[in-house]
Amino acid sequence: MSLPASPEALLIDLAGVLHIGDQLIPGADESLAKLRAAGLKLVFLTNTTRTPRSTLVTKMRALGLDVRDEELLTAPGATMNLVRSRGLHPLWIVHPDLRAEVGPDATSPDAVVLGDAGAHFDYPTLNIAFRHIMRGLPFVAMARNRHFKEEDGLSLDMGAFVAGLEYSTGVKADIAGKPAAPFFQAALDLAGVSAGQAIMIGDDLRDDIGGAQALGIPAVLVRTGKYSPADENDPDMRPDAVMDDFKTFADVLLSPP
Amino acid sequence: MSLPASPEALLIDLAGVLHIGDQLIPGADESLAKLRAAGLKLVFLTNTTRTPRSTLVTKMRALGLDVRDEELLTAPGATMNLVRSRGLHPLWIVHPDLRAEVGPDATSPDAVVLGDAGAHFDYPTLNIAFRHIMRGLPFVAMARNRHFKEEDGLSLDMGAFVAGLEYSTGVKADIAGKPAAPFFQAALDLAGVSAGQAIMIGDDLRDDIGGAQALGIPAVLVRTGKYSPADENDPDMRPDAVMDDFKTFADVLLSPP
Repeated sequence: MSLPASPEALLIDLAGVLHIGDQLIPGADESLAKLRAAGLKLVFLTNTTRTPRSTLVTKMRALGLDVRDEELLTAPGATMNLVRSRGLHPLWIVHPDLRAEVGPDATSPDAVVLGDAGAHFDYPTLNIAFRHIMRGLPFVAMARNRHFKEEDGLSLDMGAFVAGLEYSTGVKADIAGKPAAPFFQAALDLAGVSAGQAIMIGDDLRDDIGGAQALGIPAVLVRTGKYSPADENDPDMRPDAVMDDFKTFADVLLSPP
Repeated sequence: MSLPASPEALLIDLAGVLHIGDQLIPGADESLAKLRAAGLKLVFLTNTTRTPRSTLVTKMRALGLDVRDEELLTAPGATMNLVRSRGLHPLWIVHPDLRAEVGPDATSPDAVVLGDAGAHFDYPTLNIAFRHIMRGLPFVAMARNRHFKEEDGLSLDMGAFVAGLEYSTGVKADIAGKPAAPFFQAALDLAGVSAGQAIMIGDDLRDDIGGAQALGIPAVLVRTGKYSPADENDPDMRPDAVMDDFKTFADVLLSPP
């Protein structure tokens, strides 16, 4: 695969690409504005499941990032679509901040949905989830990220708890966010473009790059966020391009041929 | 493999074989006494890592099970041997009840040791472990059991947290308890017998049966505890015999030929 010379849409990961925690990645604000001014359709895809979407948009705008609500696809949003389309009534294991967005737990749940409860993960709740899955309830997870970049270093992401429950139950979770194909397809649909007319930009080799490429979307890995040099020598996954940061990507894309 | 007609030693799992929580498995007490009276050497191997060994022995005796301290090999004990033999100074993630047995955490730990913290597993501690492992500290786990049987059903065991940290760090844990070969070898050494002179009896297909057989120890699966009928059709592991319970095993072994 190679990068399209004149893409119509950009699918952009947030954390690790445009910002890290409360810090803007230098130049990301101006580069985003330039890409928007150049007429590119923008879709933002995030696997963050600790923060409600309204807070996320407010936070991006406070950093000077012009991220608009109607352009934002989140893993919790994708999960709620999946739950609705299957008519499920889940037990939700989520961060307290996300409770209002997903609504209350069903009295007699017929599915288990795992989000990133973060510091609120606890054994009693995980054991309830374990027992539900063992008696046959479907197991849905918003994402299965290994780790994410915080201001003070990499931190354990919800993928650890997905992998742990999968190991103990012997049941594979259905992932709603990246790298699930329907999530990337929803991004293409939102932009109204086909896979070859878009470029994905992310810092996660498996979830951003691998997930996009599986649908035929060319993908650029940035050397910011959770990026590690080992990502450039992965035996299984190869980004279509690797660039220092989002600003470099924008400069290359917008430079005259 | 087949069962030796006249074994010299029995390696016996505790939870799920002799008792379930605070309940004796019917007949296990008398059968154990008969096997002991018949002159068989007994070694008890447990992966329980929530309970200190003194409490464990007291608990067994309260159930009428003649389990003696000098015959007991525990996963925490095996872990401490491993830690000492490698000269490690770990951060211990353990159940509060086990803290006195393992001692305090090192100020500057050079290893991470995971036990079954049970209801005390929490995200902040797991994230500290994650960060230590990511910066290269060895990762040791007392066990990696998937689940265990409680009075009110199967519960999530510490293997979920081992698998989760392995997934997020990309680092495999060294397991000190079952099914690790050194743990079974220690049991043979304690009994002073070779693999072919012993029989392992357990309710965990992978950790008890698979672990023993890997060292050439014939192994009997009992249909109690965490046993599931699917265990009898596992594509990878086949017990040398499957018996209804510990009493049945003892009756068969002690019946005249």
